[in-house]
Amino acid sequence: MKIHIVKIGGHLINDHKFLHNSLIAFCKLQGYKVLIHGGGRKADFISKKMGISTKMIQGRRITDKDTLDIVVMTYAGIINKNIVSTLQSYHCNALGLCGADGNCIKSYLRKKTNIDYGYVGDINVKSINTHFIKFLLKNNIIPVLCSITHNGIGNLLNTNADTIAAHIAMSLAEEKDCEVELHFCFEKKGVLQNVQDSESFLKKINLHLFQKMKQNQTITNGMIPKLENAFIALQNGVSKVSIGLPNYLNDVHNKTMLCL
Amino acid sequence: MKIHIVKIGGHLINDHKFLHNSLIAFCKLQGYKVLIHGGGRKADFISKKMGISTKMIQGRRITDKDTLDIVVMTYAGIINKNIVSTLQSYHCNALGLCGADGNCIKSYLRKKTNIDYGYVGDINVKSINTHFIKFLLKNNIIPVLCSITHNGIGNLLNTNADTIAAHIAMSLAEEKDCEVELHFCFEKKGVLQNVQDSESFLKKINLHLFQKMKQNQTITNGMIPKLENAFIALQNGVSKVSIGLPNYLNDVHNKTMLCL
Repeated sequence: MKIHIVKIGGHLINDHKFLHNSLIAFCKLQGYKVLIHGGGRKADFISKKMGISTKMIQGRRITDKDTLDIVVMTYAGIINKNIVSTLQSYHCNALGLCGADGNCIKSYLRKKTNIDYGYVGDINVKSINTHFIKFLLKNNIIPVLCSITHNGIGNLLNTNADTIAAHIAMSLAEEKDCEVELHFCFEKKGVLQNVQDSESFLKKINLHLFQKMKQNQTITNGMIPKLENAFIALQNGVSKVSIGLPNYLNDVHNKTMLCL
Repeated sequence: MKIHIVKIGGHLINDHKFLHNSLIAFCKLQGYKVLIHGGGRKADFISKKMGISTKMIQGRRITDKDTLDIVVMTYAGIINKNIVSTLQSYHCNALGLCGADGNCIKSYLRKKTNIDYGYVGDINVKSINTHFIKFLLKNNIIPVLCSITHNGIGNLLNTNADTIAAHIAMSLAEEKDCEVELHFCFEKKGVLQNVQDSESFLKKINLHLFQKMKQNQTITNGMIPKLENAFIALQNGVSKVSIGLPNYLNDVHNKTMLCL
């Protein structure tokens, strides 16, 4: 079975129209598919309204108990359920999931080093309940995952959505009967050669070029872990990995394709 | 197949210890089972923190757009996912759902009369995706439903959790191969003859007695729609309907049993 793993994040989540168009593009994609979504800036907005300050270190949110409650409400609650209800309105039989549901992603609390990330869950390929995801797909159910996982002993944890997408893709790619394509979708056409020029997307990027662009700071911030996740997936059995707009899920020419 | 439909609500949701004990009792229940939960006062607490006022008419929440966002975050987000993660920690293979997930409950916007309830969804027996719920149960997945539904055209709606529990029970009872028991669990031993005396629960209540107790105002407020839902279920094929503590799910002597 060929499976598309689609991650949507960034401004696609913040903007109602962008999100709606992304979901229509996802609906049009034929065959087996899984959607993973991030939280955009919605959690920050709700934190602010509730008088809770957002802490970030190196592009990653520090998740204290109050922040965990906010991200669970936001990612697993309002964002996930609105996405599912929109997909259902287009007859796409979506089922919203966090990692606790059907025990689909079991994570472990990130170890404290010099930074305490708080309630953050790390995962590996074994964290993914591949059996359950395949079971849903084979029964015409489309999993829609948010970036909340659980540790199996009753705690919810916050996990990076790009990391989840990459690991779901890798875990399915390990199955003999699966061919997996991974699509990272955001509001840009792909990996840009010049961040000032939205048209300057690379058609291809390999690991060597990525390292070079990281060194000369053409690629910075959140794009670094995203591309790291993308290359790890490509190195671990995922057939195709791309970064770009959601409009071109099936078009290899209008986005950045990764190669080794 | 014999199916237990368990609704937990009221202070069982508000209080961490009560909720935990309710979930342990639910885990111990043998056989096919479905959990439905209300939202307790948590939504009010979050509304207050976000500076949004809660409006109630006749024990029912008025759901404007802001309130809808709050109840979706609270019911489908934090409450549902914490329940699922706790159940999973006891090896109970829970799957959290709102009505949009797998299109499991399709409601219709309540018509405006003299009161405009806002984003409130009403349901009937046909609203329940019985096929999907049976499919989950037969695959050893335990549905955990919150009281958010959808209208099939992209809108989430707020629906009373007792009503959902009763209608799921009725829809399953219509199936030839299903025998259904419905348990309404809250923080009291059952229907009290004297609201001041927590020990004064009735062992049985029939429709005639209910009408009498409603007239003389022994039964008031939220207990009225709860019992109305309970009697409707009993009149529509559900084998047993009870109201009481979650500790006595399988004990007909320590709660109020309904009879016609």
